[in-house]
Amino acid sequence: MSRKVSSSDLVERVVAGERAAVARLISRSEHGEAEARRALGRIYRLAGRSHVIGITGVPGSGKSTLVGKLTEKLRAKGDKVGVIAVDPSSPYSGGAILGDRIRMSELAGDAGVFIRSMATHGATGGMAHTTLDAVDILDVAGFDTIIIETVGVGQDEVEIVKASHTTLVVTPPGLGDEIQAIKAGVLEIADIHVVSKCDRSDANRAIVDLKHMLMLGMGKEAPAWPIPVIGTSAVTGEGFDALVDAVAGHRRFASDSDAGRGRRLAIAQFRLRKTAETMLLQRFADDFNGGDTTLAAKLMRRDDDPYSLAADFLARTSLSREPLRSAS
Amino acid sequence: MSRKVSSSDLVERVVAGERAAVARLISRSEHGEAEARRALGRIYRLAGRSHVIGITGVPGSGKSTLVGKLTEKLRAKGDKVGVIAVDPSSPYSGGAILGDRIRMSELAGDAGVFIRSMATHGATGGMAHTTLDAVDILDVAGFDTIIIETVGVGQDEVEIVKASHTTLVVTPPGLGDEIQAIKAGVLEIADIHVVSKCDRSDANRAIVDLKHMLMLGMGKEAPAWPIPVIGTSAVTGEGFDALVDAVAGHRRFASDSDAGRGRRLAIAQFRLRKTAETMLLQRFADDFNGGDTTLAAKLMRRDDDPYSLAADFLARTSLSREPLRSAS
Repeated sequence: MSRKVSSSDLVERVVAGERAAVARLISRSEHGEAEARRALGRIYRLAGRSHVIGITGVPGSGKSTLVGKLTEKLRAKGDKVGVIAVDPSSPYSGGAILGDRIRMSELAGDAGVFIRSMATHGATGGMAHTTLDAVDILDVAGFDTIIIETVGVGQDEVEIVKASHTTLVVTPPGLGDEIQAIKAGVLEIADIHVVSKCDRSDANRAIVDLKHMLMLGMGKEAPAWPIPVIGTSAVTGEGFDALVDAVAGHRRFASDSDAGRGRRLAIAQFRLRKTAETMLLQRFADDFNGGDTTLAAKLMRRDDDPYSLAADFLARTSLSREPLRSAS
Repeated sequence: MSRKVSSSDLVERVVAGERAAVARLISRSEHGEAEARRALGRIYRLAGRSHVIGITGVPGSGKSTLVGKLTEKLRAKGDKVGVIAVDPSSPYSGGAILGDRIRMSELAGDAGVFIRSMATHGATGGMAHTTLDAVDILDVAGFDTIIIETVGVGQDEVEIVKASHTTLVVTPPGLGDEIQAIKAGVLEIADIHVVSKCDRSDANRAIVDLKHMLMLGMGKEAPAWPIPVIGTSAVTGEGFDALVDAVAGHRRFASDSDAGRGRRLAIAQFRLRKTAETMLLQRFADDFNGGDTTLAAKLMRRDDDPYSLAADFLARTSLSREPLRSAS
């Protein structure tokens, strides 16, 4: 394939389900190539058929194993499955982690599975919309279920996984207080809770604790979607059928309910905001790279302060030539 | 103290070292109050005397314990110490974690120590400049050493800790591959490596591995600052004197060397960029909150795509009435 394939040609090939085209178009979105925007826009309008599952959990919670098992179960039902692993990247190893761990499993040779790692290191705020571009590309290429996997620490990661139709939060048993508390930051986003490593003796305690926390968070009305807590074990194979059923159940709930429609509108709003913010920050970065060393040197000497200098800088760029409408 | 103290009065009280004023001015920066900007600008121009230490590591690496021990050692030398813990926050517990853990220690009643938690949950990109505002406020209030502590996952957290004069990366022994690899994402920012929990038998292995990785990353020239790897144990008390010496050594290195001057300029540049980005995103959010549900609904129906809609939206706001200078 020549280096010069147009993005619009790539769209045709993605529609035809060509794997190499899928990979290339995702890369163009990652690199923020302006030429690719029209093509990615077309992809967006063609997409919307797949079920998108977000999976998050702290490091060591067994997310990758869970993604692997879930993918196997969905494959057994005949679904084509795309996996996008949003990874903190390593400057030493030069690469992403979660995706590699899945890739090395028995799913490696299966044409009905596509796995892609998206590195967060060096991303300039565009990670969210790039990840969602990748979801759409896989959707248009014919993948029925698309799994987004992130580490559940960091606001961006949590926001991305929330932008899925069904969100799974994975908790391992027996972690220390610190990790449990950090974990609590993502508890509220779960449609389904998974307690992993349920072959361990302390797993039941984790399930009970989670159910207790969910009860504390509940109002008086019975919820439209009672959040299930499902124990799984990769060792015994326990729980994965129940998990697949719960995911299917939530998919039906989301497509029929007002809550589901509200969620899809919120995702669209998030998508629009992130895309606009990324465009704005890219323009800002272009301007900022121009003439800032004098300003920074002044700031370093403490001859002026960051607020005044930033306001001056913004006033001099075309980004805000006129005062904006202020918040009421 | 009345609710209506002006921020400019608070500056005088901060200069006088009044703890309540320090806490209140930090809160005003966190809430992004426009009234406080002039006062925070004045604080910035008055600051610049303290030594700022950034400490990061994965959950469970023993950061909080290390911060506690380091603070005790610095106090014993007569330093006043400020600690800013940048915490993922929990919607259930409603609060921050790391800072609380330190606060509960024997340092609690010491007037020469000030501990503040800054929650990341819900921050709209302003976490970096708010944290650096807090550093300046503590600086002006007379704290000699200021420690910024963050969890080493997530780009924002890593960037913040990099904006210190001396950066410590804490690695516990014997973690699994996944955590080690994530950790690798922050290895490059260390001025000093700390291997915690050195009473454990696998600690030596962690020290050897780290030294090996550092050697792989080195060029042919002897480095101006050879990065030390220091083992510490809160159980035996081992290593903390060596750590305090290494921090003092790096402080001397940074104040005398070209590398140190380059670092301070880079920090000023980072500060300016983050402040301007936050201002820009705040203006954007004000505009965006206005009339976006129609656009989002259009997007949800896939009648249009996020790139076109975002470009249209930006063109209609005063944020980018004219095309910006594009990157060359």
